[in-house]
Amino acid sequence: MENKAVLSEKFDLFDETWTPKIIAELNGQYVKLAKFKGEMVWHSHENEDEYFQVVKGQITIHLRDRDVVLNEGECFVVPMGVEHKPSAQEEAHVLMFEPKQTGHTGNDQTELTVAVEEQEWI
Amino acid sequence: MENKAVLSEKFDLFDETWTPKIIAELNGQYVKLAKFKGEMVWHSHENEDEYFQVVKGQITIHLRDRDVVLNEGECFVVPMGVEHKPSAQEEAHVLMFEPKQTGHTGNDQTELTVAVEEQEWI
Repeated sequence: MENKAVLSEKFDLFDETWTPKIIAELNGQYVKLAKFKGEMVWHSHENEDEYFQVVKGQITIHLRDRDVVLNEGECFVVPMGVEHKPSAQEEAHVLMFEPKQTGHTGNDQTELTVAVEEQEWI
Repeated sequence: MENKAVLSEKFDLFDETWTPKIIAELNGQYVKLAKFKGEMVWHSHENEDEYFQVVKGQITIHLRDRDVVLNEGECFVVPMGVEHKPSAQEEAHVLMFEPKQTGHTGNDQTELTVAVEEQEWI
């Protein structure tokens, strides 16, 4: 990241939902942006915690025992090993921090899965 | 982080400037919030990249060869080893993402330095 990133401009660069794009790398972690709409699949990450910060809109992180609703300017960490299913009724813009090796559907290969090595920089 | 964090509420919990507060931990990294006003000191971090995201207001990250001005919704990574001096003309609210061991004045002990082990959770 030689130059600053303007988050709203970065979100304008893609339309796909559930397809995280990488905007920065630091200390073996990626900063990623994703558009959420509808329902993701239930999954967990065996060895990685995952940070969600809502930049625009509202999302729900479904956990097996409760739902966490996040609005703009709110954040939450899903600890490693915890099953979760993100969803959003309307399109929402989300910033995530994750280790470079984190797949967005965790240990599970699903029809929504984008392989880590195919995740795009924008 | 068992519950979500509402960033604006977290920023209401403290007044000090240049005193990062920890709000979340993931994968050996901390998410920290700080209020910037005035000028920090020049410093660098030998082994750590540092991520700055402006939540409110405007900051400038002075580098030796240029200035990077960040407004709300903009972010920037200062790579390890790169000297920098943050500043803000008016109070600004900043989210940072750093390894747990990162001191906020880098390798330098200054009158602004808060020891890593004294950095507070909020």
